[in-house]
Amino acid sequence: MIRAGIVGGTGYTGVELLRILALHPGVEIARVTSRGDAGKRVAEAYPNLRGFVDAVFVEPTLETLSDCSVVFFATPNGTAMRMAPALLERGVRIIDLAADFRLKDPKVWAHWYGEPHACPELLAEAVYGLPEVNREAIRTARLIACPGCYPTSVQLGLLPLLEAGVIRHERLIADVKSGVSGAGRKAEIPILMSETGESLKAYGVKGHRHWPEICQGLERLAGGAVGLTFVPHLIPMIRGIHATLYAVLKGEAPDLQAVYEQRYRDEPFVDVLPAGSHPDTRNVRGMNGCQIAVHRPQEGDTVVVLSVIDNLVKGAAGQAVQNMNLMFGLDERAGLSAIGLYP
Amino acid sequence: MIRAGIVGGTGYTGVELLRILALHPGVEIARVTSRGDAGKRVAEAYPNLRGFVDAVFVEPTLETLSDCSVVFFATPNGTAMRMAPALLERGVRIIDLAADFRLKDPKVWAHWYGEPHACPELLAEAVYGLPEVNREAIRTARLIACPGCYPTSVQLGLLPLLEAGVIRHERLIADVKSGVSGAGRKAEIPILMSETGESLKAYGVKGHRHWPEICQGLERLAGGAVGLTFVPHLIPMIRGIHATLYAVLKGEAPDLQAVYEQRYRDEPFVDVLPAGSHPDTRNVRGMNGCQIAVHRPQEGDTVVVLSVIDNLVKGAAGQAVQNMNLMFGLDERAGLSAIGLYP
Amino acid sequence: MIRAGIVGGTGYTGVELLRILALHPGVEIARVTSRGDAGKRVAEAYPNLRGFVDAVFVEPTLETLSDCSVVFFATPNGTAMRMAPALLERGVRIIDLAADFRLKDPKVWAHWYGEPHACPELLAEAVYGLPEVNREAIRTARLIACPGCYPTSVQLGLLPLLEAGVIRHERLIADVKSGVSGAGRKAEIPILMSETGESLKAYGVKGHRHWPEICQGLERLAGGAVGLTFVPHLIPMIRGIHATLYAVLKGEAPDLQAVYEQRYRDEPFVDVLPAGSHPDTRNVRGMNGCQIAVHRPQEGDTVVVLSVIDNLVKGAAGQAVQNMNLMFGLDERAGLSAIGLYP
Amino acid sequence: MIRAGIVGGTGYTGVELLRILALHPGVEIARVTSRGDAGKRVAEAYPNLRGFVDAVFVEPTLETLSDCSVVFFATPNGTAMRMAPALLERGVRIIDLAADFRLKDPKVWAHWYGEPHACPELLAEAVYGLPEVNREAIRTARLIACPGCYPTSVQLGLLPLLEAGVIRHERLIADVKSGVSGAGRKAEIPILMSETGESLKAYGVKGHRHWPEICQGLERLAGGAVGLTFVPHLIPMIRGIHATLYAVLKGEAPDLQAVYEQRYRDEPFVDVLPAGSHPDTRNVRGMNGCQIAVHRPQEGDTVVVLSVIDNLVKGAAGQAVQNMNLMFGLDERAGLSAIGLYP
Repeated sequence: MIRAGIVGGTGYTGVELLRILALHPGVEIARVTSRGDAGKRVAEAYPNLRGFVDAVFVEPTLETLSDCSVVFFATPNGTAMRMAPALLERGVRIIDLAADFRLKDPKVWAHWYGEPHACPELLAEAVYGLPEVNREAIRTARLIACPGCYPTSVQLGLLPLLEAGVIRHERLIADVKSGVSGAGRKAEIPILMSETGESLKAYGVKGHRHWPEICQGLERLAGGAVGLTFVPHLIPMIRGIHATLYAVLKGEAPDLQAVYEQRYRDEPFVDVLPAGSHPDTRNVRGMNGCQIAVHRPQEGDTVVVLSVIDNLVKGAAGQAVQNMNLMFGLDERAGLSAIGLYP
Repeated sequence: MIRAGIVGGTGYTGVELLRILALHPGVEIARVTSRGDAGKRVAEAYPNLRGFVDAVFVEPTLETLSDCSVVFFATPNGTAMRMAPALLERGVRIIDLAADFRLKDPKVWAHWYGEPHACPELLAEAVYGLPEVNREAIRTARLIACPGCYPTSVQLGLLPLLEAGVIRHERLIADVKSGVSGAGRKAEIPILMSETGESLKAYGVKGHRHWPEICQGLERLAGGAVGLTFVPHLIPMIRGIHATLYAVLKGEAPDLQAVYEQRYRDEPFVDVLPAGSHPDTRNVRGMNGCQIAVHRPQEGDTVVVLSVIDNLVKGAAGQAVQNMNLMFGLDERAGLSAIGLYP
Repeated sequence: MIRAGIVGGTGYTGVELLRILALHPGVEIARVTSRGDAGKRVAEAYPNLRGFVDAVFVEPTLETLSDCSVVFFATPNGTAMRMAPALLERGVRIIDLAADFRLKDPKVWAHWYGEPHACPELLAEAVYGLPEVNREAIRTARLIACPGCYPTSVQLGLLPLLEAGVIRHERLIADVKSGVSGAGRKAEIPILMSETGESLKAYGVKGHRHWPEICQGLERLAGGAVGLTFVPHLIPMIRGIHATLYAVLKGEAPDLQAVYEQRYRDEPFVDVLPAGSHPDTRNVRGMNGCQIAVHRPQEGDTVVVLSVIDNLVKGAAGQAVQNMNLMFGLDERAGLSAIGLYP
Repeated sequence: MIRAGIVGGTGYTGVELLRILALHPGVEIARVTSRGDAGKRVAEAYPNLRGFVDAVFVEPTLETLSDCSVVFFATPNGTAMRMAPALLERGVRIIDLAADFRLKDPKVWAHWYGEPHACPELLAEAVYGLPEVNREAIRTARLIACPGCYPTSVQLGLLPLLEAGVIRHERLIADVKSGVSGAGRKAEIPILMSETGESLKAYGVKGHRHWPEICQGLERLAGGAVGLTFVPHLIPMIRGIHATLYAVLKGEAPDLQAVYEQRYRDEPFVDVLPAGSHPDTRNVRGMNGCQIAVHRPQEGDTVVVLSVIDNLVKGAAGQAVQNMNLMFGLDERAGLSAIGLYP
């Protein structure tokens, strides 16, 4: 059994990890940490876990975590990078669900996250945990940087076009819509029900931390610079991301449906819908899946890709477990068989 | 493997059955019927089932269903009673999720459902599928009447008080709140998003079909007549029922917390929360559980019980599968291990 | 023109007052205070007010407020009582939307609000601002205690029954459902969208501060002690309260519909729906109205009353303006003509 | 007093017209028609109108309508064009909220609406009722084609850029998000609460009827052909549209904020937010306003415009009344002073 530790078990990605790992056939939940709630039973804080998780919150110390096989960081940005070197030294593998190891360039990281990186020497080693791109590297990694929720939906949506070399790189648009749980479990007025219910807004148009992450990922796929306009929106729902992606074809239009179906034929968690489809976020609610449709309106040179995920599953905790499965040689699907909760 | 047939696979209870049965280790989905969609792939209608359910809708005929071990009727009221006798004769067991076999008295049935019962001779045999009350009878039943969603939440909430004989029977109040999926998947204006979103209303105060069903169940528990006022409410959410129950103690107050904990100690799907709790419907979302709290405000003679379920799971499809597990000698929990989807 | 001051203009009742007063033909918004936002334009904080409110937030001092004709306190409990004596002394009338002057007994106040009352000598003078009960006293009052949102819905619902003397006083039940805005605009996790959306819970069953307020009001109407069980619920919507009220008739049933229609015939803001109706909270959204329906299920001895208001309007800011209109001899309806926003 | 007739008073735009006109100082609601509900009191169908609208539904005949000063058609597409010629002949002015007179080319109309136009000779005369573009023509019009909700939000958003001649015309993108009320009050499964709540989807990517309307409007502003990709999305809320618009600058970037502020300086219902803003749809809920923000991310050549309206007000009934005010020489703002309902 893999002994899993979860640092930061009181946020939405943490509790989602617990929900998934509690039923995972190859995992024992060895540690769940919380500074604020140490000593409290986890299931007391999260009554949906009653009967499934017996753990008690402990302090996040090196001692409590060093006998884990793997530690998940479901923490605010800037936490994992402070504990990672010591844990790795003790042979503990790390899967960070926050942003500490997502960007390769420590200067870019420092610019967007407002402080110097605490262990820039690990950035090169860290593997970006998008299995559809990095599966082999993940299998042998010690340190995984789980992609952000927006970056997952956007990269999976544009990947086949970039790999096939059929679009212009300089004019990509990602208009992405997210449920409110993406903003986390924080006591902040802008994410109250009375503020976000029955309303819709864009935010971060000037600049959002997921923009450099997406650019880095797309540039790797494109093999060169990309020009990306990224506009995130806050939607009055809890779970779900819908990326609407716009790209310009550079030559004759290929059979886009075939490009997508072929690229994702063997991917267990990416599902290309039939031509003409419009995915609903609800169809992947609670599920580690990405559903994609590709369109070319009026048979013109603009491609429209629709890509949906559950931000807490394929956009966070589910993808983290998918990475863990790969790292430990398990079936990639282990513990990830839930079906989308409709309605 | 149990060969399961589902009649009426296009409503919310039908698709929920499919979601549960697709992952059930002991079941093969042998038939899914739909008059309107015969010939269409089930996963085309319900894209959350893509990759999990390969079945194609067929016409609901005796032929297509008679090689099933069990047939679930997830149909409008009045459908199961027309097919039940012939199926039973062929040795097929039946679990009806609609109301056809819930009431014991055919006259009462005819009064509330507006037509004579088609097979009143089966009413005595049919077992009311509330395992917490009827577990032994369910094990050997050929024909199960699955309780309604409101009746499940109310009966589980009041059961310990009635069995313990500590409340007056004549002044019971059930103020129950339901998500909109309880109204079904029907093209009707009153359940549009624009009608039910951001608003709340009571309905059916004059009389609701679940009232005689609840009364029948409570009277059986009470061993005599009960007086029940039942007010259902439509809540702007999709899944979930919250029953707020009021009863009057008839003598000195017992230790109510102990009464509940003791009664449900061995029940796999009923969870008595710690004293002073207030259950959230979300904590049982997508899960076959009932969470209950019991209160005595101001230490007076009024007991307040709070009981929550997911109307589509413990209030319908999950309970139906729980019944199936009992009928076929499986672990009662088989296929029912999902954890509530929070947030 | 009435010069109105608003203390605490950054909460939901404050901004709702601004929305109403900005279009009131007889009022000038003279001062809007906020400690945190002093110097900022009000419409910058609340963009719905752009073009309608030119005011700039100022500090809440005696100087800035003493040239107002009336000051509304849309503040947390415990604020108004600290400024009221000095303002009254300077001839400023006060309408408190918080709880400082709602309870007549300072000991009861101290018990429920956790501190001694700062000016108990004003409690006797303060008029409880429910115009349907206290209209004449309001006209000449210097100090108004605006009723809470739950108490407004419950008292208006039970008033005709208590005045008519047709129900037993000892077994009243108020099962009340509220939208989330009733919890205010505070940075607290339990009222996040991800916590309250798509879920429903009761709270405060053990004891809620509105319970003594409702009891005090009902006892005045009943002319004696009442026994009330009050269970508030948090509903996944922003605005609206739905009170479901249960009472036991004490003799032969009167024509309940007539009792209600007659009692409220001349009330501009209470509307008795036709017999058999079920009010929707949306029908009074944004409007200073209370819609009520009265039922007697199965022609028994239990009366069920359904009463809906918008918690921020008739349950707070609208009722406050209704009081102001009465205090200053204006048409009671001035500024309060908005129609419920459906859908 | 203007005698107003409303044909099709049972849909959301019809009841919204009633809500606005009932409080309009210069209008008498003379007729409200409904085939299905003739004889019924309007306020019985729409209890939010109780006490404000006394009218009774009548059949939509030439006789009942010909003594009106103006008739609003809040009907399905294809209705107004059948009654318009006869009404105009009798001197009745017409404001159509549906699509019958929006497209100038009858062939294009027939292509998108699936039948030949019933009175193509009126298409040239009909004035497209977007006051920000056509104010003078509206003042003298007999027949107004009210813009669709999507087209209003998109055209107001792109208008300053096109008029200023600063963007390339061939690569416009309109990613637009709409609340569910935009789909109307129809008994259809896809707009049930259980289908649209807590989920998000694009639709009509292949082609939507508002696409030719928007193109026609933009081409008029651009003075030539435009290339537009339009993707509408269905959002889990009732009211509100948020258009996110992308355009490519063709030369040196002008001061975009100044371009917008100057263009809309004198417009009563279009409000340019301060630089860096992100409008919320809730801030214009129930209000005849459009709030706009303009951004240039990373100081590049892509302009992002955010434009929000209430689809039922500035996107339908409010704009219709604004047109009526202009046609009858009233203050353009008459009856349209409501403030956005926040929260």
